[in-house]
Amino acid sequence: MKKIMNNPGQIVDDMLQGLSYMHGDLVERLDGYDVIVRKAAKDGKVAIISGGGSGHEPSHAGFVGEGMLSAAICGAVFTSPTPDQILEAIKAADEGAGVFMVIKNYSGDIMNFEMAQELAEMEGIAISSVVVDDDIAVENSLYTQGKRGVAGTILVHKILGYAAHQGKSLEEIKAIADALVPQIKTIGLALTGATVPEVGKPGFVLADDEFEYGVGIHGEPGYKKEKMKASKELAAELVGKLDQEFQMEAGQSYALLINGLGGTPLMEQYVFANDVAQLLEEKNITVAYKKIGNYMTSIEMAGLSLTLLKLENQQWLEALQANVITPAW
Amino acid sequence: MKKIMNNPGQIVDDMLQGLSYMHGDLVERLDGYDVIVRKAAKDGKVAIISGGGSGHEPSHAGFVGEGMLSAAICGAVFTSPTPDQILEAIKAADEGAGVFMVIKNYSGDIMNFEMAQELAEMEGIAISSVVVDDDIAVENSLYTQGKRGVAGTILVHKILGYAAHQGKSLEEIKAIADALVPQIKTIGLALTGATVPEVGKPGFVLADDEFEYGVGIHGEPGYKKEKMKASKELAAELVGKLDQEFQMEAGQSYALLINGLGGTPLMEQYVFANDVAQLLEEKNITVAYKKIGNYMTSIEMAGLSLTLLKLENQQWLEALQANVITPAW
Repeated sequence: MKKIMNNPGQIVDDMLQGLSYMHGDLVERLDGYDVIVRKAAKDGKVAIISGGGSGHEPSHAGFVGEGMLSAAICGAVFTSPTPDQILEAIKAADEGAGVFMVIKNYSGDIMNFEMAQELAEMEGIAISSVVVDDDIAVENSLYTQGKRGVAGTILVHKILGYAAHQGKSLEEIKAIADALVPQIKTIGLALTGATVPEVGKPGFVLADDEFEYGVGIHGEPGYKKEKMKASKELAAELVGKLDQEFQMEAGQSYALLINGLGGTPLMEQYVFANDVAQLLEEKNITVAYKKIGNYMTSIEMAGLSLTLLKLENQQWLEALQANVITPAW
Repeated sequence: MKKIMNNPGQIVDDMLQGLSYMHGDLVERLDGYDVIVRKAAKDGKVAIISGGGSGHEPSHAGFVGEGMLSAAICGAVFTSPTPDQILEAIKAADEGAGVFMVIKNYSGDIMNFEMAQELAEMEGIAISSVVVDDDIAVENSLYTQGKRGVAGTILVHKILGYAAHQGKSLEEIKAIADALVPQIKTIGLALTGATVPEVGKPGFVLADDEFEYGVGIHGEPGYKKEKMKASKELAAELVGKLDQEFQMEAGQSYALLINGLGGTPLMEQYVFANDVAQLLEEKNITVAYKKIGNYMTSIEMAGLSLTLLKLENQQWLEALQANVITPAW
């Protein structure tokens, strides 16, 4: 394992120090906690918060800022944040209108966010939440009942962040979230595994000519290993799976997110994007919003994921297009 | 070699199709050429253009947009663009006030940009240029006389793009560029080599416990190989080299760019940033502008570079902070 780090056990601490230094105009670290909060003045709006294990940078701290998240809680690498950290994030983020938690569907995350919710409610803070389970690759997984939460989560951050910025109430935001999440579906593939610094070796290994469909962002097993294929074929498989789930029809409008997992350069992501574009054009799908880059990574894993959001509500598109001031959107 | 691609010989073409699809609101591909141009309306200002071999994404096409580049020329991977491609970019970008070329210091790039300049001048277009040679690692290299041009180039794009957007003349922009470039210095390190798709194997190989200081963005040799070290020690070496070059003094003001080379996750870049921050604070250096992420990559190479720009002119800082509308800044 070669990594640019000091002590593996202190990598999240070092990272958060570096992150709050580099983006000190927008965010700051909550003193004594692994929590990044935004610096923008509070004005009585609902706070959207999220978090999870570290190792997915820029998720989630990179999305803290005006118009998106109020706070992000950063657990140890690939490990759920603890309830006390989440509680501190809730208290720091609350502007008096309540706090909405965006939780990825991992059992540990759900348990700890719910415990924090109970503690916060005892302190009189109104809390609501949504669980994102956009990964259609597999049902149930190493750390998940049902479907995993992956890259589509950043679209939830963006759309709910916009709603909060507009002054929507906690109940209104909950209604938007409940309508939105079922319309987001993601599927990915990996070319290599990721190495957790404290473990020191990759979570899984693929042969030099092999890749795997449907791997999770913590290296959870996917659904099929194959010999390396052309990008066009990869795109056909992933678009095909999404098509099955959405039952796509000509004329429908979607938002498209192509997400690099950390080790795959933009060059390859663009090549893949071109193949996806052709497939969606053949189906006469309208792609009204497009985003590409490394947003929900798995440390240095090579691979990517493909997310589609069916734009059933025109306001979701407005929300995606709105300007925000964050380190990473 | 595992890469998400189709035919290696068509990877740049596929990439540019994907890029212009994903960012079609801001840029477009010049029909029949490996050139990305911005869509913003022309209004008689100087056009800033840049380019070079592909494999450094998002450089340079990701910086095409309002307030930055008017066009980017994209050569084959790690290969200078041809004069005819550059000429087409010049003609497409020209708004009547002349075209300013930002060239990284590689012999092939200089030759081909100069040839294109001659051809464009024969067609009556005023041209000026600057050669960026910010890499202080080594003098002369595989493809370079003098010092190589690396990540600091994006700061040149940003500052000259702002000047052009403000309506400065070609002569004024040349004067800014000539004052600016000597104040930008970069030094990097690599943990792994990069694989050019058409070659199929890494340009160089480092052992599992080894890294190299001063590697170029095409894998050109650096100045020292060592066993892997702690981030603090890496930061001390790189900051020390920059200190030697700048002869830093307490109270001086700099812009800081930490650039990932493609395969190094943000987590490690932030850890390194924290170590750099401490060293600069010890020297009482003011860091007035900060930027971090993958901007001038070397395909999937793991590693990073550290750039400092000595802010001798307050307008450079304004230029760095100004809003732009590009795919990648």
